[in-house]
Amino acid sequence: MQLYFATGNQHKAQEVEAILRARGADVEILMHKGEEPVESGSTFLENALIKARAAFAATGAPSFADDSGIAVEVMGGAPGIFSAIWSGGRDDKTNRDLLLAQLIDIPEENRAAAFVCTMALVDDAGEVSVTGVWPGKIATQASGEHGFGYDPIFIPQGFSVTAAELEPEVKNSFSHRAMALQQLASLLTSR
Amino acid sequence: MQLYFATGNQHKAQEVEAILRARGADVEILMHKGEEPVESGSTFLENALIKARAAFAATGAPSFADDSGIAVEVMGGAPGIFSAIWSGGRDDKTNRDLLLAQLIDIPEENRAAAFVCTMALVDDAGEVSVTGVWPGKIATQASGEHGFGYDPIFIPQGFSVTAAELEPEVKNSFSHRAMALQQLASLLTSR
Repeated sequence: MQLYFATGNQHKAQEVEAILRARGADVEILMHKGEEPVESGSTFLENALIKARAAFAATGAPSFADDSGIAVEVMGGAPGIFSAIWSGGRDDKTNRDLLLAQLIDIPEENRAAAFVCTMALVDDAGEVSVTGVWPGKIATQASGEHGFGYDPIFIPQGFSVTAAELEPEVKNSFSHRAMALQQLASLLTSR
Repeated sequence: MQLYFATGNQHKAQEVEAILRARGADVEILMHKGEEPVESGSTFLENALIKARAAFAATGAPSFADDSGIAVEVMGGAPGIFSAIWSGGRDDKTNRDLLLAQLIDIPEENRAAAFVCTMALVDDAGEVSVTGVWPGKIATQASGEHGFGYDPIFIPQGFSVTAAELEPEVKNSFSHRAMALQQLASLLTSR
């Protein structure tokens, strides 16, 4: 089965390809880089649907999209859907540095956070969605060279290093995106 | 009765003086600018108590403090306790510009927000707190010269202009801080 993945983010596309391949899913992922619709939703799900619907409308083929981000408990779930433009722009390091600065007075026990990834799939059969959550906490300083986004300041539950210090294969078996894709793979198989 | 107000923010001190005077409260407000304690709390109340307790410890006299900020619904209540350092620093305009940039794709109907002010009073009799809420929404651009903080981008419910376009006397009869101070004045009178 051919599936379009609606994203302008090469990192995400690479991760998705790696994870689905590892799960042995019988799908061919085509990257759909259409005109990016305005992500005007209030939730990860709404924004994932906006992107998946646009890709489906453009390709006429089964299309999925993800919306993901980091949710900090003491911030009521922010940055959340605003993770990618947290500093007003899309530079990962600036976004991370801002979050660290905002949380500077918050002690370790109150730095709980989670990576969240919602994926929406749109095809002729309708719309379905899955969500993966990766719990952890925000570090006090960035560390690690792998991954992207908030990985260098996110310490996953059960680890003492950041997500950016994990080997990609390790991250890709624990991450929010991995959890969502695992569910997506099951969904596709059962259809 | 003499009351110490723990704040390093001259704007807040001026507002508090104006509002309590307008309510005819029989109190003399002394500004307490001690060494600022770390605001390590997770809520407005925790941070207000941290500041009020520090002022009470330093002065030995009844002391109160406020913690306040703007809570945006689609952000889960953020900036919240992080309002003053939202951009990593304490510059009002930079904080406002960042919030506007973060919300750039969010349509008017989902820009609901509220100013929240919690005041904590600490004296020999114990600790009490009050909270005032001023509902409204986030504008799409800054407007107005009065007030401070997020006033230029906050449109109070029932108004078509920002809080910074209101005369100070108008703002001081509707605002979150006014609502909290009204409750505080009642508390002080009934003690």
